[in-house]
Amino acid sequence: MKVRCKIWLDHAGKAFGEGPCELLRRVEKTDSLHQAAQQMNMSYSKAWNLIQTVEKRLGFSFLDKKVGGLSGGGSRVTPEGKEFLRRYQRFESDAKKVIERAYQKHFGNRLAERGRR
Amino acid sequence: MKVRCKIWLDHAGKAFGEGPCELLRRVEKTDSLHQAAQQMNMSYSKAWNLIQTVEKRLGFSFLDKKVGGLSGGGSRVTPEGKEFLRRYQRFESDAKKVIERAYQKHFGNRLAERGRR
Repeated sequence: MKVRCKIWLDHAGKAFGEGPCELLRRVEKTDSLHQAAQQMNMSYSKAWNLIQTVEKRLGFSFLDKKVGGLSGGGSRVTPEGKEFLRRYQRFESDAKKVIERAYQKHFGNRLAERGRR
Repeated sequence: MKVRCKIWLDHAGKAFGEGPCELLRRVEKTDSLHQAAQQMNMSYSKAWNLIQTVEKRLGFSFLDKKVGGLSGGGSRVTPEGKEFLRRYQRFESDAKKVIERAYQKHFGNRLAERGRR
């Protein structure tokens, strides 16, 4: 048995969680929302709408859009977006650790007992 | 903004979480799976199947079924089931507290900063 969890930030609805976090990390790496969406098997329009919702609910821009140019345009994560991503990742990593610790505290010995039967 | 989370125990699939916990607490109070299901606007067959799945995945019985009788039968939570429920509730309550603490640690000052702008 193991503990599982899904964590998200809420602000007038689901504002930020694992999905947007992964998508934006991929935009950071590729400088392209198109490529990031593709890597996650997500349609571009779904990815676009997701970012729109996140920006609206959190109240700041995650993407600087560059339109056109030789590269066909691209997207860069804004400095505020990068700062938020780092903060969220640290939070999520901490949260998963403390949940696992709480699980071990309450179920650790029970599992050991059952294992001995 | 606030943090939200969904926690569950997994053992070859979703084994136990908020839904079964609430259903079983209502069975404890009413000694009836029928009434417990009704209180949660859940069909009896859905509640029954949920308990079957939980029992199969966790490997022990949650309900002692009494069939027939003047009262039309009923269900009692087994001692092992009660012990598990208490343990799960303590775990869930702890887990929510530590997640909130992690959230405050990582986002508390950011929210205060934004509030001052």
